[in-house]
Amino acid sequence: MEDLEGGVDYLADERKKAQFDVNAMKILWAGNQHRFQIADRMARLVASDPEFKKDDRVRLERKELFKNTLRKANHAWKRIIELKLTEEEASQLRFFVDEPAYTDLHWGMFVPAIKGQGTEEQQRKWLPLAYRMQIIGCYAQTELGHGSNVQGLETTATFDPETDEFVIHSPTLTSSKWWPGGLGKISTHAVVYARLMTDGKEHGVHGFIVQLRSLEDHLPLPGITVGDIGMKFGNGAYNTMDNGVLRFDKVRIPRDQMLMRVLQVTREGDVVKSDVPRQLIYGTMVYVRQTIVYDASRALSKAVCIATRYSAVRRQFGSENGRETQVIDYKTQQSRLFPLLATAYAFRIVGDWLKWLYNDVTERLQANDFSTLPEAHACTAGLKSLTTSVTADAIEECRKLCGGHGYLCSSGLPELFAVYVPACTYEGDNVVLLLQVARILMKTVSQLGSGKLPVGTMEYMGRAEHLLQSQCSAQKAEDWLNPDVVLEAFEARSVRMSVACAKNLSQYSNPEEGFLELSADLVGASVAHCQLIVVSKFIEKLKQDITGEGVKEQLQALCGIYALSILGKHLGDFLSTGCIKPKQASLANDLLRSLFSKVRPNAIALVDAFNYTDHFLGSVLGRYDGNVYPKLYEEAWKDPFNESAVPEGFHEYVRPILKRQGNAMLHYVVAAFYSSQPVIELASLYTTIIEQHQSPLLQDDEQCSLG
Amino acid sequence: MEDLEGGVDYLADERKKAQFDVNAMKILWAGNQHRFQIADRMARLVASDPEFKKDDRVRLERKELFKNTLRKANHAWKRIIELKLTEEEASQLRFFVDEPAYTDLHWGMFVPAIKGQGTEEQQRKWLPLAYRMQIIGCYAQTELGHGSNVQGLETTATFDPETDEFVIHSPTLTSSKWWPGGLGKISTHAVVYARLMTDGKEHGVHGFIVQLRSLEDHLPLPGITVGDIGMKFGNGAYNTMDNGVLRFDKVRIPRDQMLMRVLQVTREGDVVKSDVPRQLIYGTMVYVRQTIVYDASRALSKAVCIATRYSAVRRQFGSENGRETQVIDYKTQQSRLFPLLATAYAFRIVGDWLKWLYNDVTERLQANDFSTLPEAHACTAGLKSLTTSVTADAIEECRKLCGGHGYLCSSGLPELFAVYVPACTYEGDNVVLLLQVARILMKTVSQLGSGKLPVGTMEYMGRAEHLLQSQCSAQKAEDWLNPDVVLEAFEARSVRMSVACAKNLSQYSNPEEGFLELSADLVGASVAHCQLIVVSKFIEKLKQDITGEGVKEQLQALCGIYALSILGKHLGDFLSTGCIKPKQASLANDLLRSLFSKVRPNAIALVDAFNYTDHFLGSVLGRYDGNVYPKLYEEAWKDPFNESAVPEGFHEYVRPILKRQGNAMLHYVVAAFYSSQPVIELASLYTTIIEQHQSPLLQDDEQCSLG
Repeated sequence: MEDLEGGVDYLADERKKAQFDVNAMKILWAGNQHRFQIADRMARLVASDPEFKKDDRVRLERKELFKNTLRKANHAWKRIIELKLTEEEASQLRFFVDEPAYTDLHWGMFVPAIKGQGTEEQQRKWLPLAYRMQIIGCYAQTELGHGSNVQGLETTATFDPETDEFVIHSPTLTSSKWWPGGLGKISTHAVVYARLMTDGKEHGVHGFIVQLRSLEDHLPLPGITVGDIGMKFGNGAYNTMDNGVLRFDKVRIPRDQMLMRVLQVTREGDVVKSDVPRQLIYGTMVYVRQTIVYDASRALSKAVCIATRYSAVRRQFGSENGRETQVIDYKTQQSRLFPLLATAYAFRIVGDWLKWLYNDVTERLQANDFSTLPEAHACTAGLKSLTTSVTADAIEECRKLCGGHGYLCSSGLPELFAVYVPACTYEGDNVVLLLQVARILMKTVSQLGSGKLPVGTMEYMGRAEHLLQSQCSAQKAEDWLNPDVVLEAFEARSVRMSVACAKNLSQYSNPEEGFLELSADLVGASVAHCQLIVVSKFIEKLKQDITGEGVKEQLQALCGIYALSILGKHLGDFLSTGCIKPKQASLANDLLRSLFSKVRPNAIALVDAFNYTDHFLGSVLGRYDGNVYPKLYEEAWKDPFNESAVPEGFHEYVRPILKRQGNAMLHYVVAAFYSSQPVIELASLYTTIIEQHQSPLLQDDEQCSLG
Repeated sequence: MEDLEGGVDYLADERKKAQFDVNAMKILWAGNQHRFQIADRMARLVASDPEFKKDDRVRLERKELFKNTLRKANHAWKRIIELKLTEEEASQLRFFVDEPAYTDLHWGMFVPAIKGQGTEEQQRKWLPLAYRMQIIGCYAQTELGHGSNVQGLETTATFDPETDEFVIHSPTLTSSKWWPGGLGKISTHAVVYARLMTDGKEHGVHGFIVQLRSLEDHLPLPGITVGDIGMKFGNGAYNTMDNGVLRFDKVRIPRDQMLMRVLQVTREGDVVKSDVPRQLIYGTMVYVRQTIVYDASRALSKAVCIATRYSAVRRQFGSENGRETQVIDYKTQQSRLFPLLATAYAFRIVGDWLKWLYNDVTERLQANDFSTLPEAHACTAGLKSLTTSVTADAIEECRKLCGGHGYLCSSGLPELFAVYVPACTYEGDNVVLLLQVARILMKTVSQLGSGKLPVGTMEYMGRAEHLLQSQCSAQKAEDWLNPDVVLEAFEARSVRMSVACAKNLSQYSNPEEGFLELSADLVGASVAHCQLIVVSKFIEKLKQDITGEGVKEQLQALCGIYALSILGKHLGDFLSTGCIKPKQASLANDLLRSLFSKVRPNAIALVDAFNYTDHFLGSVLGRYDGNVYPKLYEEAWKDPFNESAVPEGFHEYVRPILKRQGNAMLHYVVAAFYSSQPVIELASLYTTIIEQHQSPLLQDDEQCSLG
């Protein structure tokens, strides 16, 4: 019989098993020493401040929850000012507070929209107000009827030449703005996206600054209908945010509140394009998508940390008059968990690389060099799609990997899943993005014969002739350790899938019709391309110098696990395109199994390297000290539901059932039927009832009460 | 521009497209006319009763939520009595009330445990009390430290020969009972599973009836510590249930409260086996697993109904000066949604077949025929595992298929996912079950040469010699319409995977070590076997007479979609084992696409055939009339959060930020940093700030307020 009061034992022993320098890995995970120190300091700052407690979040009713979030946002802002935090520090502080709030939209969408789409004059007028938070803004684009198809937005902005104003109006129910965060209750202003109408003509969708609420009493201004859209998935989670609904009843704004950096409307109502290239918008898009990919690695690593630690604490089966086996020692657990651990590292590495890509794109844009934009766009769109979908699925998989206790809110995983999953939908629907990638892939394939060589993440396509013929050279399991073997297999798979799609597409006289018909296959080709990008960036990273004893070896093992588990999961692709043979797949599977064994002693240290505080993880199962069971037990008793031994409603609704007098036969015949799972062997039940009715035991109802 | 006020249009037109007799399909889905009528009547009874309203469930705080559930349970019981409902009707009523409650455990676990494991005398004493609900019981098996490994339970029941009592005790923290439903607040009694100890010896785990609470004041009895384990995943969902924690401090019970049908303890403390065969326990297990498989088809069909209807309502992209394209017309949507629709039908069909299997097993047990038990056990264990895992993933996929609005609680899908997902963990952890199936598969393979032919769902293994050599005969896409072609491919895949596992296992000198090492591959072989069972039962169904014009054609299309989408998803298996060639996989993919087109006009009618009321679906997106947008809008305003235009906390925590005076430079330099997504182009921000500080605009703070 185990003594589990000191759960802490397990993880201390586990930590001793590490075969690499954990501190060096912490620096690698954070990016560099500087970033590590800032993150570490800010995490501890938040964790040690009682104002930022979050363990009761899942219990709070909506109004209380929201008020609490406002309190924390206010407190965070005070701390930032008091401590004179830099931009980077403040950003990290907000991240560790770990609660969606209106400030995310004010700083993350409203301000950048004005900076990116406002003229210099408009920026001079509005930015100081926004920076001082004399106004609070949000980004009102999505409507009830339109999300992905931005050009289909229905809100109108009609120029009135008599008053030099735009009239903002919601002509239909489906034109109601719906979803924007910070909109429902807090924002005083919004950048509103609407169809520009002048002189009876339409000019596409543009942004307009609109005041929504009075700066005196915070009530909606005339013509403005605004409110919250209701409860969302999960306990706590995104319910801390006031996602809003917004309708305009002919609301008038000065003409100069149209954001006019790219397109202007003159006093006469003429529409004039500025000489600012439209491509500049890509800079913002690349930036935002880089942050989303990086954020995926953060969410995924959180989930993996919890599941890995708990898998080492939890023991079940396998004892022979001694301790049972740690769940993390089962190959079934490793084969599900370790690929997710590897993926967390893979996504961190590709997220870091995307920072470089963003800087590269920005420099080129400043030099009016748009040549790499299509590839950068495809790359970031695809990676946004891939990393968010994989991470969402992985968080839920981590929750399931925690068995029964993963279902408790105190595991931290239900809320993490619910708060993360919208990433698959915002900033681009994931399927729509992959189809955009597919278009660029098809275009690249079509240009292969032209002498125009593909660049960047598409570069391998230029080697299509070789890759369409290449044979995988793996003869034994260890051959799959060779990154060149892995890379070639992934490149060959991607080229062959894209070329096959292109061939099938060419059968259609109407290419658009073909694209629609074959869209599922095109998505498959895009996924292959995106997975290749991640694998290749991981392999590239491993070619660099990496400090810390044993660190590179661990990353090599994780890289192998990442690539080979994808190979196993998508084996149909690799085999049907002839990239590898079944025997080689079997060898890869053998190597994968041995890589699991290699990682096993290092698993706890590999998640320690994320350097997450217990506060940030918000999980009893994922505690650093592994002291799970006493804390689970403690948490249960903290729940207000346990304040009374007899629950509300008992006397009204249950006691009458227990104390019901009357026709005994009727009672138990009828009551026996009251079940969502019918009583088994009902035939013998009837027999028993008849026998019992004649039993002396039932003559004395009072004697039946057992005290 | 669309007029979406009358969303109802879309579904009326959709319903006209159906190419089959929907009423006949409704009967088929329900099982037969009798079951259809009962379900229909009970669903409407519940839907029309305001006491059973559930649209505010996700907003309620825990105590209120729980009280509300007690109210509904009480009301349901009253209605059952008032209407004199039969067992079947009452069971359906409870199902449509759609809210986990203590009664599920009382009738579904407590009563069957007494019936299944109590002696006749014990049943005569306890069942009348339970039927009359003079006592309310639950099933206290799972502990904090032990779920799957029932033999590892730590609660002890030690016989005291002096007092003729058992002493029930929780010796460690991890021995605390944890999870049982109905335990935390309501149950007065429990069947408690504990290690039997007599005379210093252990005799395994057995069941004991223990009173937990006073029947007078409902307070826990001396030595009993009992309470709720805290919040669980999801809004509403399983938080309507009081899953409990329970500890015993040397609680004494009479000896005759040990359930002694299979094993007795005499007055002297001797342990005596009765002559009741242990195998009888399998009857209960098969029954419970059949209900779980059937329930999977119910939950999945609910989710698919919502996603399918909404996919026909939602339009995005594709317009050319007219209406945009319905999302359901996109092949990317069809390729994700239609396999789930097909799976719902497949699981309903296999769930119906399992009812036959249960009756067969029961008859054989009564005749002391245990020959089919291993196969029946493997079959139900595997199908429990497969159907629950697939359904859980599918419900979340359906939610994602509803795009942004799927994230609202009013879509019904968040709660459906959260309340369903424990099915993957209770009544057997899904991975553990698949490993049990694998053991039986390996045993069957090892016996192949012996002349002992496998039976039932293992029968195909007896044809291993042929299936190991068979070549798929498909030459054109339509060949995949032939059920024999499909069945042979699935049988060949399963045999080859099991045989390959057996071969690999034989390399290990220690078979147990081999089993552990190869457990991930063994799970794959089990999945292949279980998927084959579902496919073969679907194909068997289609060989029977099926009434209703066009009904069989639709089911044939769905059967094809079910099988071929599995083939595509697991293509690696089929190719690596050589069951099919890549060209044949491509043909299958082509046919799958054409089957999507075939099902498309029938999709709405196929989900109408589930005959779910809007009340039961609990989804604005899945409304029968398709009137989504007006109702989404309406629902938002019903939320109490919108009662006040200015939210609680605004004056305390936000207004001070808006009205803050003081050092303007400090404000906007610092505030600019307060963001989770750093302001883009910070360099130019600094420049702007410096410029602005010299701007005349900032001399007049008051002028900056915009009214």
